[in-house]
Amino acid sequence: MSARLPSPNPHVAAMSPYVPGEQPQGGGWVKLNTNENPYPPSLRALEAIRVALVDDGAALRLYPSPDSAPLREAAARFHGCAAANVVAGNGSDDILNLLIRAYAGPGRPIGMLNPSYSLYPVLAAAQHAEVVKVEVTDAMGLDVDAVARCGAALFFLTNPNAPLGVAFATDVVRSLARVFPGLLVVDEAYAAFADDDCVALVREFSNVVVTRTLSKAHALAGLRVGYALCPPAVAEVLHRVRDSYNVDRLAQVAAAAALDDREWLDVTVARVRATRDRLAAALRRLGWQVNPAAGNFVLAAPVSTKRAASVETAAHCCEFLRSRKILVRRFPNHRLTEKSLRISVGTEQETDVFLQAVTAWMEG
Amino acid sequence: MSARLPSPNPHVAAMSPYVPGEQPQGGGWVKLNTNENPYPPSLRALEAIRVALVDDGAALRLYPSPDSAPLREAAARFHGCAAANVVAGNGSDDILNLLIRAYAGPGRPIGMLNPSYSLYPVLAAAQHAEVVKVEVTDAMGLDVDAVARCGAALFFLTNPNAPLGVAFATDVVRSLARVFPGLLVVDEAYAAFADDDCVALVREFSNVVVTRTLSKAHALAGLRVGYALCPPAVAEVLHRVRDSYNVDRLAQVAAAAALDDREWLDVTVARVRATRDRLAAALRRLGWQVNPAAGNFVLAAPVSTKRAASVETAAHCCEFLRSRKILVRRFPNHRLTEKSLRISVGTEQETDVFLQAVTAWMEG
Repeated sequence: MSARLPSPNPHVAAMSPYVPGEQPQGGGWVKLNTNENPYPPSLRALEAIRVALVDDGAALRLYPSPDSAPLREAAARFHGCAAANVVAGNGSDDILNLLIRAYAGPGRPIGMLNPSYSLYPVLAAAQHAEVVKVEVTDAMGLDVDAVARCGAALFFLTNPNAPLGVAFATDVVRSLARVFPGLLVVDEAYAAFADDDCVALVREFSNVVVTRTLSKAHALAGLRVGYALCPPAVAEVLHRVRDSYNVDRLAQVAAAAALDDREWLDVTVARVRATRDRLAAALRRLGWQVNPAAGNFVLAAPVSTKRAASVETAAHCCEFLRSRKILVRRFPNHRLTEKSLRISVGTEQETDVFLQAVTAWMEG
Repeated sequence: MSARLPSPNPHVAAMSPYVPGEQPQGGGWVKLNTNENPYPPSLRALEAIRVALVDDGAALRLYPSPDSAPLREAAARFHGCAAANVVAGNGSDDILNLLIRAYAGPGRPIGMLNPSYSLYPVLAAAQHAEVVKVEVTDAMGLDVDAVARCGAALFFLTNPNAPLGVAFATDVVRSLARVFPGLLVVDEAYAAFADDDCVALVREFSNVVVTRTLSKAHALAGLRVGYALCPPAVAEVLHRVRDSYNVDRLAQVAAAAALDDREWLDVTVARVRATRDRLAAALRRLGWQVNPAAGNFVLAAPVSTKRAASVETAAHCCEFLRSRKILVRRFPNHRLTEKSLRISVGTEQETDVFLQAVTAWMEG
């Protein structure tokens, strides 16, 4: 074997990969750790896949629509915009990556809230771009001035915020869009569960991009579909740097059908919100410190009669839950999250199982 | 609307997107322009998708295996290597892109044969990497010395070459691997149709990567699955820069099942090769200049009693075929391809329709 192993780019050699939430492949877990939807997707999505598989799957031999045209039309119908405002991606992670490839790099840092999605710094590192973090205020608000002055070429505003769960009001984001000199990317992975969203800002400003995913509200995390809503000039740039066939045939048809099934979405989001609010109220009654929750998860700091809220208490509770095959997620690297667990909203039954386990932990 | 439209990176502003082959969405076309397999995929792939969709598609709500573990195991079984040697991608285009992100950039040019796959320069432009092109010799051979001295950080060797169709012998590639100082990427999109491949070189050298796709021989272009076979140290680098869930659930299970169905592959490849050889022989009998064909396509320069081989003759024939709803592809930008058409191998019946149209064109 040849001795010469070529070295990667130094910035790639220095970076660490993103660590996704645990995806246990066996059964029996109550999986409340990666904010998946607890309900199966729209039956229309399933039917669209079945139709695409007729004649022994003959259509699979053909490349998909390179620019996901029918899917982009469906997203445009959903949001009341034009297909020229939509770029489809292999999950919204693909879109986030394309934005960084197109707009960031050495001398063009990205900005993000701290805490927010831990993928952004990984994508920035792969692009050799620096990261500017703007702290969420202690009152869990958005410091508009600090973001406006942070010097980032593009800023990722996760709204509702994950892992905090809080939403920033559209008017506050609008005031930021007015003064931020770069590209403002509002990552709306969880917006379908919130009371409001920032889609209107894409029409109002030429420097606002909204990213969406089908992984959460539409229950299609397994299919990897997301999209950007953006000015056509930004869309044109993203199309240049994306893979030429970045969304596959089955994902395209399923996502389009899911977007067209508004009734399913309304019913499912209402169920998840109702369970979320029940979960938050129950934890508050137990004395836990619970964040306002606008997404499909609740960030809450465990306490018991024996244990005050602390990093150790959160770790102890997390391990206890794991011993009962319940997965939640910890974020020990920030003062606003270190004492807490992030609990995805499950089914009613999963929520009951979780609350029973919590009660047992508090009594233990 | 805000007047400020942020500018992308200058190298992105300057680049042009890849232009994929035409994908007509309506029916009635004899589509011989993008080298898809004319036959539907393995029924086992279809069955794997059906199994993954049980319980109203409930599994779709869950993220897939982040590193495509079961698919990588299947690829390892297929090639007789370890899963640690395999990185799965959203099509092999994803893998090519990851290789360039990890190993190329300003001051670290990519190399490629001229002619070969026109996506490489687009991916290089997105990475702000220069492109060094090494000419295929007039005898359609590989100039090992020229590649070895070309100065590229990584070199893409399309083998069998597309669009030429010729294959370079494994021993010639081995001699190149021995002397090339960078990463040698053997793009084997079409290798399943050839007499030999370079997979053994991944074991023999630490600077060789082989890329494979399920889009051609496995008839799954619609699902977007490809992979790299590489030393574990290279795999570890590619895992850092890839999307955390880059291959979706249905694509993973279908591709794994397809790789496990060797009998289907053997039968299908034999059919395509037989049709390819019949097509090439028929065109030779008609007086066309036909390249040796190792892939699932034939590059051939049309002639008729009235027209010698020329750029204009190729364009004329191509338009005539299009008027009969037959799509083939032209490559007018290189001396070895400009007079030719690249004709994907279709079904027996499609090949007959094509040959009848060619006869009509020659008589017209």
